Amino acid sequence: MKITRLSSAVSIRRTGGNATPEQTEAVKRIIQTVREEGDAALIRFAKKWDNADLSDLRVSREEIDQAVTRFDPQLLNDLTEAAENIRKYHDNQKQEGYKVTEQNGSYVGQRVTAIESAGLYVPGGTAAYPSSVLMNVIPAQAAGVPRIVLLSPPAADGSLSDGVLAAAHILGIDEIYKSGGAQAIAALAYGTESIAAVDKITGPGNIYVALAKSEVNGDVAIDMIAGPSEIAIIADATAYPDEIAADLLSQAEHDPMASSVLLTTDEVLAKAVSDEVEKQLAELPRQSIARAAIDGFGTIYLGETMEELIDAANQLAPEHLEIMTANAAVDAEKIKHAGAIFIGRYSSEPIGDYFAGTNHVLPTNSTARFSSALSVYDFLKRTSIIHYSEQAWQDNKEKIARLARLEGLEAHARAVESRQWKKENRL
Amino acid sequence: MKITRLSSAVSIRRTGGNATPEQTEAVKRIIQTVREEGDAALIRFAKKWDNADLSDLRVSREEIDQAVTRFDPQLLNDLTEAAENIRKYHDNQKQEGYKVTEQNGSYVGQRVTAIESAGLYVPGGTAAYPSSVLMNVIPAQAAGVPRIVLLSPPAADGSLSDGVLAAAHILGIDEIYKSGGAQAIAALAYGTESIAAVDKITGPGNIYVALAKSEVNGDVAIDMIAGPSEIAIIADATAYPDEIAADLLSQAEHDPMASSVLLTTDEVLAKAVSDEVEKQLAELPRQSIARAAIDGFGTIYLGETMEELIDAANQLAPEHLEIMTANAAVDAEKIKHAGAIFIGRYSSEPIGDYFAGTNHVLPTNSTARFSSALSVYDFLKRTSIIHYSEQAWQDNKEKIARLARLEGLEAHARAVESRQWKKENRL
Repeated sequence: MKITRLSSAVSIRRTGGNATPEQTEAVKRIIQTVREEGDAALIRFAKKWDNADLSDLRVSREEIDQAVTRFDPQLLNDLTEAAENIRKYHDNQKQEGYKVTEQNGSYVGQRVTAIESAGLYVPGGTAAYPSSVLMNVIPAQAAGVPRIVLLSPPAADGSLSDGVLAAAHILGIDEIYKSGGAQAIAALAYGTESIAAVDKITGPGNIYVALAKSEVNGDVAIDMIAGPSEIAIIADATAYPDEIAADLLSQAEHDPMASSVLLTTDEVLAKAVSDEVEKQLAELPRQSIARAAIDGFGTIYLGETMEELIDAANQLAPEHLEIMTANAAVDAEKIKHAGAIFIGRYSSEPIGDYFAGTNHVLPTNSTARFSSALSVYDFLKRTSIIHYSEQAWQDNKEKIARLARLEGLEAHARAVESRQWKKENRL
Repeated sequence: MKITRLSSAVSIRRTGGNATPEQTEAVKRIIQTVREEGDAALIRFAKKWDNADLSDLRVSREEIDQAVTRFDPQLLNDLTEAAENIRKYHDNQKQEGYKVTEQNGSYVGQRVTAIESAGLYVPGGTAAYPSSVLMNVIPAQAAGVPRIVLLSPPAADGSLSDGVLAAAHILGIDEIYKSGGAQAIAALAYGTESIAAVDKITGPGNIYVALAKSEVNGDVAIDMIAGPSEIAIIADATAYPDEIAADLLSQAEHDPMASSVLLTTDEVLAKAVSDEVEKQLAELPRQSIARAAIDGFGTIYLGETMEELIDAANQLAPEHLEIMTANAAVDAEKIKHAGAIFIGRYSSEPIGDYFAGTNHVLPTNSTARFSSALSVYDFLKRTSIIHYSEQAWQDNKEKIARLARLEGLEAHARAVESRQWKKENRL
């Protein structure tokens, strides 16, 4: 890994890549086709891109039961325990409404309700991500979303992975369809004969899925558009180079554009981590991906002081930040911007990906400055409530009419005053 | 106004309009120019579109003080009282973090912090909107955002409106710049010599402002993209036709594309409201705007039952919904989707625009199905915190490694296991 002095780095902040105009156009065409042709388009695209002959888009009860039966019981237990941890964490995010009542009988307030339906996209193909099912579905369930739908691209034999179906089964989700890519997002946004449209779409995916989510955004809600995975680690001499290297590589194996960054004041540690990364990289199954990520986006930054490292981390606002220092919990307090902070030696990043209970859908590309993990809040909405009593209207109508006229909105002023007409008539 | 039976209406849901490719291209060029040329571009564009010769982009302390001195003291009191109501309502939205601690010494939690900076765009030109200053700044202040900046287009004499500066003064905001349109959004997103970039941009604006916000979205956060204003009213025979008409017109005067809808089961009321709208329209200063809105997007829907009206309102998911019925508070409980609900005769919509305390930045185009009013939450972000103790790691590492391998992510499994190596070495 390259080792650079922080003081000589121009900007360490990461920004997102751009799609090509061809990709954008292709996605627009796919969405239009699904809107026009519905199920027929989904079935044709499944043949074209997933090489799968589908008669039914929906996964049958039998398919789910068979997948669960085939699935390793130990892994089923692991997923169940992970689901419990995730639920326990997210249950803390439930929101209540409120109501502020005045002596004159007026009240204003906020009513919090769940959205009516959510669609989760689960990437498929060579890999399958049961953890994505847990991380997207559980916040929606904790929010109380009545209808939760899963879409995932089928394998060539028309099946979805046992792991994905098992995870869905654990959560009691059985509305699952076989469709992937931009076409799946279009189906969720606008509906087809088989798939009723949803109000919000969440879940990871490739560039086509991301573009499709951007395209339908506004007609339905979407979660964030996730960029390549990122890890930054602040470490001092008390940390172990092989553990740091292993954690840096855990994100590097995700994507050739993933970013792995070490921030340290210790040159000896920097060199040792760099050597360890090389050593461990040589033995990884996803070596070529991790190699591309480490060479392209992996950097060890050397700072003079811990404060400089903290500043750099805040500038970076990384998706995942590990702190492996003598006073990790104290140093963590100084971090202003990060998606998730992993404190101390035993808090290896994959613990958050799978098990600790926090959400693994996190802001990338320095957007942790203003964005947050996927959460229960993403599946709730708030309605403002306003009730003015006759007394409150009487006390305030002139002020409100004046403010409306200040903005040149005469009809606003007259609307508030209109209640007066009858009062006067009655007198 | 046209009167239509709900049973014969195909779809009452509203969808947003689209910008032309030329508008989109123009906005992209403006943003690029501001990124390349900074202040010089802002000054040139102010000359070109606002006809204003600017030497300084920033509003001076003197300009603010003079505006406040000139401003009507009664209106200053009205704005101050409105600001107090808005602050009282929004203070209820402050969010706390949480921490879930386990017996093995682990904890997971959520830390809630304010974003570091927010930029508010205030439209200018012929009208000025002091209420927009209050509605955007106060939630940011309640969240604890340390830096809040205002941008607004200058008049031809290079000034901003007294009302806007007075509202800013009331709130203690003095970082104010003279810049409008897409160029102002570009300056907020990427910064210039005079204006440091912000993390989130909020505030209303025309199509160019909306397009610019879409364009910079992701590099910075934005609030919603607001469509034309909307009001729907559910009314029965207990309501007064002239009051309903006045409230329908209060939204119609905003924009030729504003939508005003009445839902009722009472044909006599429907006819009376239609007549009243004509009568009141003829006397409005913004008659041509309101006329275009009423003719293009105004409808009275007749239903058979109150349930049918409620269903229609939920399908519409309007920005503003007034309920003027015998049991307004009870009927309001049945509404699932609306930006804000105004309950009862005296709760005329402009009360919420200016004074009641709720936010007037509300979801349009049926997005109340999944979106909410601008709020304190929009200016907060959450960081996940994960600390695993050695014991927790010991208890769970095998499960986590198995889940990682299930997803084909070997480096994830090895990262978690890596802590084991030293344990074994030590034994």
